[in-house]
Amino acid sequence: MENRLRKIKAFAFDVDGVFTDGGILADTTGELYRTFDAKDAMAVRMAAMKEYGLCIITGGRSESITKRFTTVGVKLEDIYLGSRAKIEDFEDFCSRHGYSADEVMYFGDDLPDIPVMVECGCGVCPCDAVDEVKAIADYITTRPGGKGSVRETLELVMKLQGKWALDVQEYKKKF
Amino acid sequence: MENRLRKIKAFAFDVDGVFTDGGILADTTGELYRTFDAKDAMAVRMAAMKEYGLCIITGGRSESITKRFTTVGVKLEDIYLGSRAKIEDFEDFCSRHGYSADEVMYFGDDLPDIPVMVECGCGVCPCDAVDEVKAIADYITTRPGGKGSVRETLELVMKLQGKWALDVQEYKKKF
Amino acid sequence: MENRLRKIKAFAFDVDGVFTDGGILADTTGELYRTFDAKDAMAVRMAAMKEYGLCIITGGRSESITKRFTTVGVKLEDIYLGSRAKIEDFEDFCSRHGYSADEVMYFGDDLPDIPVMVECGCGVCPCDAVDEVKAIADYITTRPGGKGSVRETLELVMKLQGKWALDVQEYKKKF
Amino acid sequence: MENRLRKIKAFAFDVDGVFTDGGILADTTGELYRTFDAKDAMAVRMAAMKEYGLCIITGGRSESITKRFTTVGVKLEDIYLGSRAKIEDFEDFCSRHGYSADEVMYFGDDLPDIPVMVECGCGVCPCDAVDEVKAIADYITTRPGGKGSVRETLELVMKLQGKWALDVQEYKKKF
Repeated sequence: MENRLRKIKAFAFDVDGVFTDGGILADTTGELYRTFDAKDAMAVRMAAMKEYGLCIITGGRSESITKRFTTVGVKLEDIYLGSRAKIEDFEDFCSRHGYSADEVMYFGDDLPDIPVMVECGCGVCPCDAVDEVKAIADYITTRPGGKGSVRETLELVMKLQGKWALDVQEYKKKF
Repeated sequence: MENRLRKIKAFAFDVDGVFTDGGILADTTGELYRTFDAKDAMAVRMAAMKEYGLCIITGGRSESITKRFTTVGVKLEDIYLGSRAKIEDFEDFCSRHGYSADEVMYFGDDLPDIPVMVECGCGVCPCDAVDEVKAIADYITTRPGGKGSVRETLELVMKLQGKWALDVQEYKKKF
Repeated sequence: MENRLRKIKAFAFDVDGVFTDGGILADTTGELYRTFDAKDAMAVRMAAMKEYGLCIITGGRSESITKRFTTVGVKLEDIYLGSRAKIEDFEDFCSRHGYSADEVMYFGDDLPDIPVMVECGCGVCPCDAVDEVKAIADYITTRPGGKGSVRETLELVMKLQGKWALDVQEYKKKF
Repeated sequence: MENRLRKIKAFAFDVDGVFTDGGILADTTGELYRTFDAKDAMAVRMAAMKEYGLCIITGGRSESITKRFTTVGVKLEDIYLGSRAKIEDFEDFCSRHGYSADEVMYFGDDLPDIPVMVECGCGVCPCDAVDEVKAIADYITTRPGGKGSVRETLELVMKLQGKWALDVQEYKKKF
């Protein structure tokens, strides 16, 4: 496991159930809103400052997802909305950036995430993922989705790689 | 019980307390917003892809309910808003589609759901339903409303009927 | 206690921490939004159908409170927003409707509620009220605010008085 | 510890994870919304009525934060949005008001808060703060962020200083 984690150069994420507790607030126009976690966001910003690749692959289609993740350091071109065959988007991300699959950690929690979790370098899921995903995950976080699952894992990888340290001046400049 | 579940061809649902934890966000115009669960939504889409009948019977009147459920595969004409005598709407749904009552599973959690839960093929409630509903339910889910109660049950029925499998290409085409 | 409950003819309520878990969603204009519970709402509608008096006395000032509670059967003139000296509003409500204080049950959870809880016929608080309120409450619900605390209590009183029964046709006509 | 608490004349706060559970609701324009706690708000108003200094130092940039905290008694000029090097803003607050660092209590929960927690008179964090913050906190509240962590602590300090008493007429005048 430690060997796997040492190779990670990029993090790719599903959104619902990973960055959120799965809750989706619906308005009268059909627009959907999500609640993200501030500590997860801090971890993503830390990864961006340390030059890890960052990628979002979600079935969701709301522009609010794009707005949220570009704010914490994910590049616009690495956010895949409305993804159904997620493995295609995962491979597109890897090939555009020159990552091999085993250099990318993927976070998922439900059936559409399984093909990517199997192919990537390390498949991670929150403790409240569905059983089929937990059965094939390389790492199951102690925290549920939307409550620090991402933070826990990014911290683990970045500490192992000696990258978990906040430089306040760099933080000020970048965000 | 297994015999009952094998007959199910359609799922009918109350909304508040079933697809949600009962929470209703109110704005200054009187409009109400609900938070739905992504894993429940995946289960409803799975049921739609496998051609199960789907029906919403809610006391709620918000257009956001219609928007949300048409997005996950429920037909507009099978969404009953502002339902008070729910049994009338349940019977209308059954007769329009030619279902007998015992072919339809109904999910409810509060007093207005009781007449339908008694009449339908299998009455299901979340573990946090009111006592009167739990007393007459055929199946009480291990999860509370809005936190996978629907997912748990649809998965149970569809696995029993050999229908629980995600075809990514079909998913891509339909949603 | 049972004697006290038998005398109750009206229910008066604080809002935050009673009908909600205390959470207040703030927007950029300063407007505040609350999340109410569907099962609590059903109980208030039941009380309205059985002709109990209903009153809201809240420090909150949002029009969304008025909209929400008129929808479930509270009369506009019995909703006191921006209440600071709550006892004055409580006495106004009692005198306008001819209730003696011991005919009114009051629900509160924080310091400004204490004078009313002491004066009313039965002071009720959720299990997560502040210690000072719990110390003087006549009844502490098993459920926390916003999660069925109101439902639990109204059901208790109305069952004791033989009023807890849903007439679907009456429900249809009134709401 | 008691000696430290007796010296406190002002309270300074991070927002996310302190006044909230860390949840951030994102809309399609990139605007972010937070859910605050009514009992925490009451404690801040109590502190304002007793003439304690109040200061917000947050990485957040939403105008909704300003609107919310001016409503509960924090002065506009003492709200620092978009703070990255928080220690600079903390020192600015102290110097503008003539507080020495050990007269100010600071509430934080994540990495950017650490320099201020070390310098201030008493560093407080909720029980669900990150490990690095808990390791250096002078006081860890029994409650998590957004669920009474602020209330618990302000009540502790103000009771110790004999200031925890609600004067309803003063409350009416000030808020």
